[in-house]
Amino acid sequence: MISSITARAIVYNQYGEPKDEIKCHSYKINLENLKPDDIVVESIACPINPSDINQIQGVYPSKPPLSLTSLPNLNNPAAVTGNEGLFKVIAKGSNVNNFENGDWCIPKNVNFGTWCTHKSALNNEFIKIPKTISINEAATIAVNPSSAYQMLTYFEKLQPGDWFIQNGANSQVGRAAIQIAKKLGLNSLNIVRNRDNINELKNDLISLGATKVITEDDNNSKDFGKTIKSWLNGKEIKLGLNCVGGSSVTGLARKLGHDATLLTYGGMSMKPVILPTSLFIFKNLTAKGFWITGNITRFPNSRLETIEAVIKMMEDGDIVEPSYEETNVKISELTDDKLLEIFVNGLINSKQGKQLIKFE
Amino acid sequence: MISSITARAIVYNQYGEPKDEIKCHSYKINLENLKPDDIVVESIACPINPSDINQIQGVYPSKPPLSLTSLPNLNNPAAVTGNEGLFKVIAKGSNVNNFENGDWCIPKNVNFGTWCTHKSALNNEFIKIPKTISINEAATIAVNPSSAYQMLTYFEKLQPGDWFIQNGANSQVGRAAIQIAKKLGLNSLNIVRNRDNINELKNDLISLGATKVITEDDNNSKDFGKTIKSWLNGKEIKLGLNCVGGSSVTGLARKLGHDATLLTYGGMSMKPVILPTSLFIFKNLTAKGFWITGNITRFPNSRLETIEAVIKMMEDGDIVEPSYEETNVKISELTDDKLLEIFVNGLINSKQGKQLIKFE
Repeated sequence: MISSITARAIVYNQYGEPKDEIKCHSYKINLENLKPDDIVVESIACPINPSDINQIQGVYPSKPPLSLTSLPNLNNPAAVTGNEGLFKVIAKGSNVNNFENGDWCIPKNVNFGTWCTHKSALNNEFIKIPKTISINEAATIAVNPSSAYQMLTYFEKLQPGDWFIQNGANSQVGRAAIQIAKKLGLNSLNIVRNRDNINELKNDLISLGATKVITEDDNNSKDFGKTIKSWLNGKEIKLGLNCVGGSSVTGLARKLGHDATLLTYGGMSMKPVILPTSLFIFKNLTAKGFWITGNITRFPNSRLETIEAVIKMMEDGDIVEPSYEETNVKISELTDDKLLEIFVNGLINSKQGKQLIKFE
Repeated sequence: MISSITARAIVYNQYGEPKDEIKCHSYKINLENLKPDDIVVESIACPINPSDINQIQGVYPSKPPLSLTSLPNLNNPAAVTGNEGLFKVIAKGSNVNNFENGDWCIPKNVNFGTWCTHKSALNNEFIKIPKTISINEAATIAVNPSSAYQMLTYFEKLQPGDWFIQNGANSQVGRAAIQIAKKLGLNSLNIVRNRDNINELKNDLISLGATKVITEDDNNSKDFGKTIKSWLNGKEIKLGLNCVGGSSVTGLARKLGHDATLLTYGGMSMKPVILPTSLFIFKNLTAKGFWITGNITRFPNSRLETIEAVIKMMEDGDIVEPSYEETNVKISELTDDKLLEIFVNGLINSKQGKQLIKFE
């Protein structure tokens, strides 16, 4: 057995444009004589999420401190990038009973620094993940499907047959919400931007379990309201999910019934949340925010409960594997420059599509 | 004792421009042989509120039906105008023990039709009001000070020393909120529109108990945020009251702390509620509506509890008498045309200032 390995991690020393600020830091991890409660993990896969990018930009409210103790042998205060990712255990201390070598795990908390090849940490910083789900599912379970699950179940007590409405329905959260809703027996009214291949997209979302898919033009049209009313057949929509803002959320909110909840979890249009006064006063609308990171402390156990529920749905085939652009990395052939190049390219490509870095 | 009286009421037969649609309807009320549970009341005073006007326009969600049975001897379906007012009992049925002739009372519910000289109704449609408060206070207790009381006490559990912020602070609700907050030991940050006599207005609100008064220009200024921070001295503002909308509510919401509640009870700017996405996601803002009419059914007993609490504050001098433009009416000298003229003028004048019609 080898006694030590070279670990590489993507770090930054100051906030700024992500592709310019990230660096690769390498150091040794000793696999023998571990502290009794520590485990050493090797990366299997990690996504590049918008919140990772916003952290490096310095504009995200939750971020790891820039510290000399983030990793061994740092010359300047640094933070390790990445909040989500799948690891496997490759070594463990003498007290560790909850993990065996080869087990899969994900970080229990955010700000863990997942853009790396290896990490040594306390075993209780991880949640074990069964191998009954795929690598891609496990590596991306903690943010998008978990957000969808909590938004659909933590706020309004929806019953089978009830409706919710969402914009940005083709996002990873939106697609997860469609599938989770179907499993829960809920109807979904899904808003997407118009595009050339709109029917293809509609069919794609319908195949995931969407009840109805409409365009933003439909959402903003007064006439189209009658069509929606006929679909609802007397029911009122009790929950809205907004990741767009601007006129999209105005149109979405107008579809909500009395005493409904509107959850804002993103602002892709870069415009604020604009809501008619009358919806607040006369329809008793409640508008709240949703931030899964905030919920880790706000609802203790929420992360574990949520991940267990989502794993079950993935195992049962209720949620299909999310689609990512994948980059495959051979850890044994890596250099510092090579790992940095992979993540710089990942950041650049993430403007076009969701990126997943897979290690082997 | 006279056996019957002529009752006059302001009614409308269709929705439209209020001053054109209202009419005076007169009929006889027999003061003898009342039904056992009925009382006959005579008007002491009633205000002209924005919601009364919106009802006649047909744009208010809560409104009395146009019906042939709204009053005796109607030729066309009609509704009686007015939702708030003070009455005195002038006759009672044999079963009525909770009222004596001369007692003051206000309607228990909205849509009662208070713009009238007399009314016959079930005694349990009224709440008795002690004569320890003034006529003007009693006639206007159910909407403005009651709204202020509920907004300050029903949503956030504010403790002495806590802050709330409000725009439209010079409105009747705003002035009541300042005084109730002072009684409760709360600090108020009050936003008003700039004007020539701004210092006079500031001093006026300070004399009511306002902690700080700022202008909308201050509210929209980034620099001014530092001044507010120094006032707060480490505290976060937990509650915001909005009756303006547009950029005013955006600026107001930015002053709120984490996990705060924003209550919208009006939209005087005619612009929607515009709130930055980040306040929802990262500061966990909850935006709700406030409608005292909705609360009558939503929180049973709220009307009675609230009125009792507000009466106590009025008796103790914690809330001073609100300022109204008064029109005095001698019931004994009235004709149908005269009563109609009074309310038409009241509607016209209500654009300049709050109107109270007083009967004697």
